[in-house]
Amino acid sequence: MEKLFVIKIGGNIIDNDDSLRSFLQSFSSVKSKKILVHGGGKIATAVGEKLGIASTYIDGRRITGKEDIDLVTMVYGGLVSKKIVALLQSMQQDAIGLTGADGNIIPAVKRPVVKTDYGYVGDPLQDKVSIDKLQLFLNNDMIPVIAPLTHDGNGQLLNTNADTIASVTAVALSGIYDVRLVYCFDKKGVLENINDEDSVISDISMQYHQQLLKEGKLADGIIPKLQNAFDAINKGVNEVLIGDAADVSINCSATFKGTLCKA
Amino acid sequence: MEKLFVIKIGGNIIDNDDSLRSFLQSFSSVKSKKILVHGGGKIATAVGEKLGIASTYIDGRRITGKEDIDLVTMVYGGLVSKKIVALLQSMQQDAIGLTGADGNIIPAVKRPVVKTDYGYVGDPLQDKVSIDKLQLFLNNDMIPVIAPLTHDGNGQLLNTNADTIASVTAVALSGIYDVRLVYCFDKKGVLENINDEDSVISDISMQYHQQLLKEGKLADGIIPKLQNAFDAINKGVNEVLIGDAADVSINCSATFKGTLCKA
Repeated sequence: MEKLFVIKIGGNIIDNDDSLRSFLQSFSSVKSKKILVHGGGKIATAVGEKLGIASTYIDGRRITGKEDIDLVTMVYGGLVSKKIVALLQSMQQDAIGLTGADGNIIPAVKRPVVKTDYGYVGDPLQDKVSIDKLQLFLNNDMIPVIAPLTHDGNGQLLNTNADTIASVTAVALSGIYDVRLVYCFDKKGVLENINDEDSVISDISMQYHQQLLKEGKLADGIIPKLQNAFDAINKGVNEVLIGDAADVSINCSATFKGTLCKA
Repeated sequence: MEKLFVIKIGGNIIDNDDSLRSFLQSFSSVKSKKILVHGGGKIATAVGEKLGIASTYIDGRRITGKEDIDLVTMVYGGLVSKKIVALLQSMQQDAIGLTGADGNIIPAVKRPVVKTDYGYVGDPLQDKVSIDKLQLFLNNDMIPVIAPLTHDGNGQLLNTNADTIASVTAVALSGIYDVRLVYCFDKKGVLENINDEDSVISDISMQYHQQLLKEGKLADGIIPKLQNAFDAINKGVNEVLIGDAADVSINCSATFKGTLCKA
């Protein structure tokens, strides 16, 4: 199977023009088929403040009201998406900016209210991801740039976590590509010692993951990331790499610098 | 040649949720291949006011500064584009929201400063429109929904008049499709008497257009629209229809209710 990289970048890269440009230059040097998934970072909060929309979070998750979904549609689907696309085009990368609604690539359901009403938040329907459409773009040398937005099929856009978008996309395409899902963050990889940037654990198997959890060795921030990684692997993704955005070029090659998670 | 409709809608439809939904329902009933081009209308000005960005116009054209290009990227490329796409998807129309940067479909140059500096405004490069890409979407049953934004190939997004986007797209595709360019506005068509909505002129030839201009019979607002129409016809578009958005379904059929411009 042909190699495909599904690469997710977060706010720490997007919020700064220089770091975004520098990341996109490394990303451009990746010759294999690839998909970029981006968050929106602090820009949505900053624009929201100017518009008088207060961002509300419960347990670190944005509560997406009527005004908020318009806000994130503008910022994620417009400002951030199109800025990335225009920069990639200037690097001879034929990017196309998409949300889950475009080409119906990622349909979702509005998250049901159990304890918390998250508002206009979408949980993607894994089985309904448009594999054909994504493959069509890739086969025609386009690079899908996916914003963290989905839709409910009834005309409503929904806010969806970018890590989830990346994972759902990687899982959907794992039947036809040899997928490496790459989560970029602000550390070199999963650290054995959070205070030592050089203590990157280079490989984590499912078994070792369980052991690390049992030993309580993992920092709070990395626990959900590893959970996402192994969830994706359980659903068919070949490998998940957690590493520094600055290392994206090497992390999308036969070798790598970050942490490689495999079954 | 297969029929293709390139349909442009303006602010009067977009600014109101009910009129937008009702227009999109009629648009959905058009069975032929089609492309929708939208403006942004008053939403950009309204959001801009909340953000403290004053809209400046010279001779009816927005001056697009650094803050304004971010604003219209958010509103045209994000809010309006994705709202239209999500609504069309709910009507089983496989829409895909694009700017000129996406798939490099409409490259442009920043308008040179002669008397007025329009700022980040782009004049499309007619010969560089990605015909192959637009055809790929159409051949795969997608409906391109194009926002009035282009890019300069150096990473800069540019604001471009929606009528121009529609015309450039129609011209580019006129070599491979039998194109009818449909300009929707708030009148039934070109009126012989501006005070009489029933005085629609049903056909205007190039010769008749010249005669109408000479006789000084045309209202100010319609003069540039007819100029655009005949420019597009001179560049190869088969026919241009100027009519009411409410009549889009009939205006995209063998018959029509508005004004049909032909060579």
